Amino acid sequence: MSQQKGFHVAVVGATGAVGQQMIQTLLKENFPISKLTLLSSARSAGKVVDVNGQEITIQEAKPESFEGVQIALFSAGGDVSKELAPEAVKRGAIVVDNTSAFRMDVDKPLVVPEVNEADLHEHNGIIANPNCSTIQMVVALEPIRQKFGLKKIIVSTYQAVSGAGATAVEELMDQTKSILAGETVEPKILPVKADKNHYQIAFNAIPQIDKFQENGYTYEEMKMINETKKIMHLPDLQVSATCVRLPVAVGHSESVYFEVETEGVSAQEIKALLKDAPGVVLQDDPENQVYPMPANCVGKNDVFVGRIRKDIDEDRGFHMWVVSDNLLKGAAWNSVQIAERLVELGLVK
Amino acid sequence: MSQQKGFHVAVVGATGAVGQQMIQTLLKENFPISKLTLLSSARSAGKVVDVNGQEITIQEAKPESFEGVQIALFSAGGDVSKELAPEAVKRGAIVVDNTSAFRMDVDKPLVVPEVNEADLHEHNGIIANPNCSTIQMVVALEPIRQKFGLKKIIVSTYQAVSGAGATAVEELMDQTKSILAGETVEPKILPVKADKNHYQIAFNAIPQIDKFQENGYTYEEMKMINETKKIMHLPDLQVSATCVRLPVAVGHSESVYFEVETEGVSAQEIKALLKDAPGVVLQDDPENQVYPMPANCVGKNDVFVGRIRKDIDEDRGFHMWVVSDNLLKGAAWNSVQIAERLVELGLVK
Repeated sequence: MSQQKGFHVAVVGATGAVGQQMIQTLLKENFPISKLTLLSSARSAGKVVDVNGQEITIQEAKPESFEGVQIALFSAGGDVSKELAPEAVKRGAIVVDNTSAFRMDVDKPLVVPEVNEADLHEHNGIIANPNCSTIQMVVALEPIRQKFGLKKIIVSTYQAVSGAGATAVEELMDQTKSILAGETVEPKILPVKADKNHYQIAFNAIPQIDKFQENGYTYEEMKMINETKKIMHLPDLQVSATCVRLPVAVGHSESVYFEVETEGVSAQEIKALLKDAPGVVLQDDPENQVYPMPANCVGKNDVFVGRIRKDIDEDRGFHMWVVSDNLLKGAAWNSVQIAERLVELGLVK
Repeated sequence: MSQQKGFHVAVVGATGAVGQQMIQTLLKENFPISKLTLLSSARSAGKVVDVNGQEITIQEAKPESFEGVQIALFSAGGDVSKELAPEAVKRGAIVVDNTSAFRMDVDKPLVVPEVNEADLHEHNGIIANPNCSTIQMVVALEPIRQKFGLKKIIVSTYQAVSGAGATAVEELMDQTKSILAGETVEPKILPVKADKNHYQIAFNAIPQIDKFQENGYTYEEMKMINETKKIMHLPDLQVSATCVRLPVAVGHSESVYFEVETEGVSAQEIKALLKDAPGVVLQDDPENQVYPMPANCVGKNDVFVGRIRKDIDEDRGFHMWVVSDNLLKGAAWNSVQIAERLVELGLVK
């Protein structure tokens, strides 16, 4: 870790799948760090992590842990954020929170830098990082909204198990091995660890991510619906979502139908827009079978978009296929990117 | 095989994934067979198949093979059907064809018994069996159309590799083993054997089924669009589709958005309709995490429907999740079911 002039950064949830990616991303992006504090639950505290050749001992996250911290990246579950993020703010830190704890609070910005960076100015100490499946979709839609307006979204997701944590990835791999060996499996984690029933994910598709609300939608689906409206500042945007878990380790895919406000737009115009859009890589050449796939997005910060085509019946309707690494742009990279923007905007004290 | 009074039935493509299921389904359903002729390409001819304890030698399919055949079930590829189905008809057989060869011919009915059985009366010797992903969707939508009308469909599919044949299932399993063992893989079959490039399917999702048309849609997507309109007799129905291949062996899933004509319909009314609909099993109890999944549908003839909920913005819009065994209701069972209906309607000579 470089000792250049920089900031005192804390990562809360440093042993989790996203926390690990946050540390890697801070290093990869050469984020200016003067001191790195790694925090976790009492259970994981004491572990020693190698960060770029330097051994750092993970400490139990407590209110006092944030003394002197300037930027705190939280990814240790909503309860930890609710308890400790205000303590970090009290001690002068600015918090980028990757849980759902504060996302819909009216006084806390929910930010995807490519879409609503300006909202960072209205932070009250805490900036929420949106849900992984929301982020990649709005990155692809924002350039379209800017040019042609946006009226309606219908999205069906194809989500990787790493969104449910490192133990869910282990479950996928162990289960797959067992099934190939002809052994019976006893699912314990997916679809939702804290829910009543658990189902096989290997060679299967589970139409449940997070628990169900009373309206028949899951919390994951409602996150996509509500967060998209907030991030894009479009309270009247029509959004609906169906979220499905797949036997894929890393990389969320989304089949997105959207309607623009402008009439007579061509698929070619949408492609031209996305070709030069920030954070987007256009992979759209059907003749040569070029389209995004989760297996190809792993480890990359970009949002990959392809299969762009006009609806056959609806002049203002289009379809596209959006893929991104859910641990990076969907979580760690978006959080670090927010931190980068905060620094560049002079918002870190 | 029972020697009861019955019909001389031929299965063309008897060694394929669907052909094998057709033989099993004929037996399971106690279809009245007096003689069973199994036909295939020259390459597979000579193989001996055990059919309910009786050994039957597979013969090379030729025009003369159909002498005396009353019902011929074809599933050996479009080219074989185009060449030999007319030969079978010439010799007095009625053909149920599971390829795409005749589906959009105006003089040939495209039939899903639960939807348009009456069209069987207008056959000219050949009845087309629709595409697997189309069948399960229209079975779920027809009761809704009858009661509330149907205006629009937007479907995203989650399709099993067995739709691409038995060798594709082998590729999925072999690839999965290799990846778990840390070995590199060389994809050879999926997404489309006859296309230029082949991609990893294990732990991945491929947004291509069948080749691409010039309009950016795949043939699979256009099949869903065109066949749905034909089967439901709704030429003005708005249908759009995105078809995606998953690392699942058997069982297609579909995220279906649809708009009805009637205003003010509730999700509860849709559920009540589907609870008693022919060929449909309702699995819809979010509180207890009851919804359809491909791993649970294998070997069953039914179409399983769940996750039924009203769109949050569109009064006439609904979402549902539709799962079925693509080799059974999507292929073999629908073909045998057509044959059963032909017998019951007195249309077999």
